[in-house]
Amino acid sequence: MSDRFALATSVVAIDGPDPDVGDDSRRRWSAAVHDGWDIGGNANGGYLLAIAGRAMAESVGAPPLTLTGHYLRPAPAGPCEVATTVVRSGRRLSTVAATLSMGGEATLQLLGTFGEQRPGGPSRTTLEPVELAPFEECVVPPPPTDGLVPELMNRIDLRMRPEDAGFRVGRPTGRPEVSGWFALGDGEEPDEIALLLAADAFAPPVFNTDLPVGWVPTVELTVHVLGVPAPGPLRCSFRSSIIEDGLMEEDGVMWDSAGSLVGTSRQLALMPR
Amino acid sequence: MSDRFALATSVVAIDGPDPDVGDDSRRRWSAAVHDGWDIGGNANGGYLLAIAGRAMAESVGAPPLTLTGHYLRPAPAGPCEVATTVVRSGRRLSTVAATLSMGGEATLQLLGTFGEQRPGGPSRTTLEPVELAPFEECVVPPPPTDGLVPELMNRIDLRMRPEDAGFRVGRPTGRPEVSGWFALGDGEEPDEIALLLAADAFAPPVFNTDLPVGWVPTVELTVHVLGVPAPGPLRCSFRSSIIEDGLMEEDGVMWDSAGSLVGTSRQLALMPR
Repeated sequence: MSDRFALATSVVAIDGPDPDVGDDSRRRWSAAVHDGWDIGGNANGGYLLAIAGRAMAESVGAPPLTLTGHYLRPAPAGPCEVATTVVRSGRRLSTVAATLSMGGEATLQLLGTFGEQRPGGPSRTTLEPVELAPFEECVVPPPPTDGLVPELMNRIDLRMRPEDAGFRVGRPTGRPEVSGWFALGDGEEPDEIALLLAADAFAPPVFNTDLPVGWVPTVELTVHVLGVPAPGPLRCSFRSSIIEDGLMEEDGVMWDSAGSLVGTSRQLALMPR
Repeated sequence: MSDRFALATSVVAIDGPDPDVGDDSRRRWSAAVHDGWDIGGNANGGYLLAIAGRAMAESVGAPPLTLTGHYLRPAPAGPCEVATTVVRSGRRLSTVAATLSMGGEATLQLLGTFGEQRPGGPSRTTLEPVELAPFEECVVPPPPTDGLVPELMNRIDLRMRPEDAGFRVGRPTGRPEVSGWFALGDGEEPDEIALLLAADAFAPPVFNTDLPVGWVPTVELTVHVLGVPAPGPLRCSFRSSIIEDGLMEEDGVMWDSAGSLVGTSRQLALMPR
């Protein structure tokens, strides 16, 4: 677990505002898709979102409130570049478009609005935190039947609700749900950028249906950041109550260790036909 | 209801591929924010999404599967332009970024993936259609207490579940939910683009809480198109189970008259502080 998340998603401005473009709203950022944050050689979608999201956040000096990524190509480990364009810069909210490219090819296209989430203002959340056994009583995701543990699982500390992990050994629950705890490795604490990784780190809930377990490519992933996580593992729950003609929705909710709702996610993905 | 939806969201290519840009992935489209599709002089968010979504769909010759819009400025009636960039053009899916501008200022920034939703492929939806009385037994949204019916309501035919409309006369249900039927005017039938309008046509479900009724500006709206609607009104349900420190999520589900789930929506909006 030596490759810390903050380092594995770090970005460096390639230059200041681009004089050739004559437009100081555009910046370019150098980064790298690190080895080991992948599932079978393809970088995890939440990890890619975190790299690009960090560059976008730095371009306006504020964390994400809502960030959408559209996945264009698989991403092997290697150098990447993020091109950010500030579409609107406001007092509270700033909107940024971006492209993460590898080898000159657009790999992930993004659009987000950034701003500090301030305490105060009305709260009327009726959604209850998912019930989970304590972190220590939840289970490290068991290896799939082919025996290869996704490399990603060596970088983060996931603990699944025991029954939700049964699909690995032929005992799906029949409910399209996967819940559990998410922590970074090495005691690194989650921040708003880590929510982007957590949103796509668990196994797809559809693995708990009668459908075959296989690659479920994400078309689009949107994360809403609703609060700054307190230190400690995130309490997470993901569900897919909609699977229509090969299109699947997955909805996630993330609470911090203090019980505050800090983020939600929704993705549209393709089921194998 | 003489201004039909298809006309009110029509777009015309300004030119072919832009020779100045030297890039045939970029196009410009001329359109207009029509008078009468507004709430108090500001064009409805779903209507704006539909104008831009139509230009984006035409740029790749396929309907939207997932479309996200970030709202930058209020939009009065008047001419507008949509600049589309095809980020990736694939066999099944194409991804398009776009900006809708008015008076030279970016008003709505968008990112979407487009493609035909084909029947077949696995379906395992567990979500049940919302229960509603027949169209004729649901109610036209009553005017707000200030007496001004939003102009938009003269263009479409909304029928709310009677109890969900009670907030207009001081009887909110206490449940953050608004459900009802959505139809276009003049017997025009809904298509994939109309789902973009339906996703933001109902009153915010938070009006059924104890929070004050007021303008709830959308930061971001994402619509997933999961099927082609059959003719007839759409059965719609919108809920806000998350309101955190002044940020509000609103989730919508849309079924067609044949009972098929054809779309979902989620928006992030600001509650008045």
